[in-house]
Amino acid sequence: MRINEQHFRTIWQQGDRVCLIDQTQLPFELVTVEVTSLVQMCHAIRSMKVRGAPLIGVAAAYGMALALQENASDGSLQGAMQQLVATRPTAVNLAWAVQHMRQQLLALPIAKRVETAWQMANMLADEDVSQNLAIGQQGKVLIAGKAAANPQQTVHILTHCNAGWLATVDGGTALASVYAAHDAGLDIHVWVDETRPRNQGASLTAWELAQHGVPHTVITDNAGGHLMQQGQIDMVIVGADRVTRNGDVCNKIGTYLKALAAYDNRIPFYAAVPTPTIDWQLVHGAAIEIEMRDADEVAYMQGQGSDGKLQKVRVIPHESRALNPAFDVTPARLVTGIITERGIFPPEQLQQAYTAFEPKS
Amino acid sequence: MRINEQHFRTIWQQGDRVCLIDQTQLPFELVTVEVTSLVQMCHAIRSMKVRGAPLIGVAAAYGMALALQENASDGSLQGAMQQLVATRPTAVNLAWAVQHMRQQLLALPIAKRVETAWQMANMLADEDVSQNLAIGQQGKVLIAGKAAANPQQTVHILTHCNAGWLATVDGGTALASVYAAHDAGLDIHVWVDETRPRNQGASLTAWELAQHGVPHTVITDNAGGHLMQQGQIDMVIVGADRVTRNGDVCNKIGTYLKALAAYDNRIPFYAAVPTPTIDWQLVHGAAIEIEMRDADEVAYMQGQGSDGKLQKVRVIPHESRALNPAFDVTPARLVTGIITERGIFPPEQLQQAYTAFEPKS
Repeated sequence: MRINEQHFRTIWQQGDRVCLIDQTQLPFELVTVEVTSLVQMCHAIRSMKVRGAPLIGVAAAYGMALALQENASDGSLQGAMQQLVATRPTAVNLAWAVQHMRQQLLALPIAKRVETAWQMANMLADEDVSQNLAIGQQGKVLIAGKAAANPQQTVHILTHCNAGWLATVDGGTALASVYAAHDAGLDIHVWVDETRPRNQGASLTAWELAQHGVPHTVITDNAGGHLMQQGQIDMVIVGADRVTRNGDVCNKIGTYLKALAAYDNRIPFYAAVPTPTIDWQLVHGAAIEIEMRDADEVAYMQGQGSDGKLQKVRVIPHESRALNPAFDVTPARLVTGIITERGIFPPEQLQQAYTAFEPKS
Repeated sequence: MRINEQHFRTIWQQGDRVCLIDQTQLPFELVTVEVTSLVQMCHAIRSMKVRGAPLIGVAAAYGMALALQENASDGSLQGAMQQLVATRPTAVNLAWAVQHMRQQLLALPIAKRVETAWQMANMLADEDVSQNLAIGQQGKVLIAGKAAANPQQTVHILTHCNAGWLATVDGGTALASVYAAHDAGLDIHVWVDETRPRNQGASLTAWELAQHGVPHTVITDNAGGHLMQQGQIDMVIVGADRVTRNGDVCNKIGTYLKALAAYDNRIPFYAAVPTPTIDWQLVHGAAIEIEMRDADEVAYMQGQGSDGKLQKVRVIPHESRALNPAFDVTPARLVTGIITERGIFPPEQLQQAYTAFEPKS
């Protein structure tokens, strides 16, 4: 990804520590932090310094390496896995990554584990990047199709939350297609849902689109339906924290509402995910545990004050309480297709594709 | 309405001036301001010190009285009407109130106009209050029906934006039913949509429900669909800025998304309006002019800083732009019923009801 014309990843190994971009400070400040222990990595994931299903999978893998550096015993391995899985329950990538590593590392002599853990984490990071590039090439074809149908007109894409560079190690999932289309010279414009309560759209998606020079406009989460009714949206592309085998899409709260509106207005609705985000064990989305986050994320809003510094302001009365479910499930019947690195599948063909894929677990 | 156990209206005549509650300061400060001229009243409406379709209708009527106090000529009357209509284009009540007054006042000798204008404005204010009480009694029956179906369970009502006391002179439209049900001892709980960008739910609805002691929880605009899927919402009641003769509901941006989710989950969806909010001239909602407000309402968020003072923080990057459509149209096919002071009508029966009502224009 490109930040001030420099190439960056969201997370990388630096000697015996991990560096990452602190996403809670964006879009107003670019801060990178060093993480040196398992405890710090768990905190970085829980407090959403790093977020996005693919990225927290890789962050957790690096967390395993940090844990083994402190103590490479079987017990430490087991404990690290449990602590990391508990940080964010909804995304499947995180649990998959740490379980996969535990299994491989347990089979090794203790002396080999640290080095191998770092290698595995770096490999997962590289895999994420190459998967996302492939997703982008798949999704670009959809956008090019829209562009070809109306050659004089801009293709307007709505996205929710942040499924861009910043949700991955690099490249993005939903936005991978956007970047691929933009870089291929297609005339596109992105409607960016603000995405309350944590504003990943307004603060992260808008920021990375601006860095890459992609035309975009921020709207409230309320506005997408109206814009669809007005014919101002050609397609919706979102990421996902988990996709079930039947094609139910678990993603940031509010995604379901956009899928309903897309369906009502006959606008195609896609989720873009690397195959590790597909939970082949799960048939229906109703079984997914939806993370309930701190109500203060609703009660307060963070932004840049007139002095240029980040500030939090309270936006609900002191007498009122709030509830903060972080994800919802969009039923497969509202989903046009799942864009993966291996192809684009209508939900009803995912199960069939499963037999062609090599299951990872 | 009850504020700190005292009875209030949102707007009232005080001698030759108008007093109103400045709603941009709520929920953290209760500020009343005096308005002494047409220009000040136009500014109060445009800047949303007063808002809500019924209230801005009455505010505009008081604006006519203030204008005539300055100059009671035909030209002044005409100019005042034009300036007031231009403040907010979407709600029908405002245009109706000032056109109605102009028509009546033009027929009077100049010397009589000021006194009559004040009388008419006060009468419109009183009518609003009595209509809203009647709406509440109608809507209470719906809530009581839900309560009777499951006597052991709380009735959960979702509302969007603010259609309460503060959107009217007193009593509310959507919330009139809530207050009537609560005061009748029914066990109810209100889910309050935050309602970005201006947060009328989080700052106004939550505040007035707290003042009245009604149990409630603030959620983001994204969360309602998920709560419906989880069976946590029994009915949706919203207000409206305009309802067409065929039952299309024009209301705060995002209402359409909640109506889609209610329909998808077989949850009844009601709009509560006094009959002056029904535009009998208009058949379809697609013809309604949707107000496009300042993008800064999306780019900035107001709340209480750690020093207790109101502050604005910027929530999108400086390089990004925003768009701010203020309303959307929910098609009649998604609407279970229109709650009015004269009865509850399914959209397809509104046209029939029209012949029974005496059209106001």
